[in-house]
Amino acid sequence: MAEENTIFIGKKGTMAYVLAVVTQVNAGAKDVTIKARGKAISRAVDVSEIVRNKFLKDMKINNISTSTEELSSEEGGPIKVSSIEITLTK
Amino acid sequence: MAEENTIFIGKKGTMAYVLAVVTQVNAGAKDVTIKARGKAISRAVDVSEIVRNKFLKDMKINNISTSTEELSSEEGGPIKVSSIEITLTK
Repeated sequence: MAEENTIFIGKKGTMAYVLAVVTQVNAGAKDVTIKARGKAISRAVDVSEIVRNKFLKDMKINNISTSTEELSSEEGGPIKVSSIEITLTK
Repeated sequence: MAEENTIFIGKKGTMAYVLAVVTQVNAGAKDVTIKARGKAISRAVDVSEIVRNKFLKDMKINNISTSTEELSSEEGGPIKVSSIEITLTK
């Protein structure tokens, strides 16, 4: 999957990411992967649901996978964070 | 799927739900479904990851699905909330 088809969910409002997905698809992307970590996981699901139910009703969820990533905390120790990847396909 | 094999993620700490899943499996359940709505979705993924990586390493994710549920808000109008279901299987 080309990295340019990936939307990373951060701290912006949900609709900013919905718009990003819709823009990529309108620019010709056949699939888009939505990635998020930690508390942003809920927002990733919201983005996927809003895109499919409101804006791009012909897109389907092709795959959802979860994993655990190890990051380094500000104190230097490792912290484990859950992550999700949702791939939408036409 | 029997309803008793379902864990609903609410406002308790993550480990309370991890323990609930492990208890069900130790009591003989072959699969357990973890359900959550809204902001609890992130915690559902945490529970699934911790169960698989730390406690029950022989369990796999059998299915992850998302949907949109319509609830009534306290003001009476409908509100839409994303939900997730993660099914772990031995």
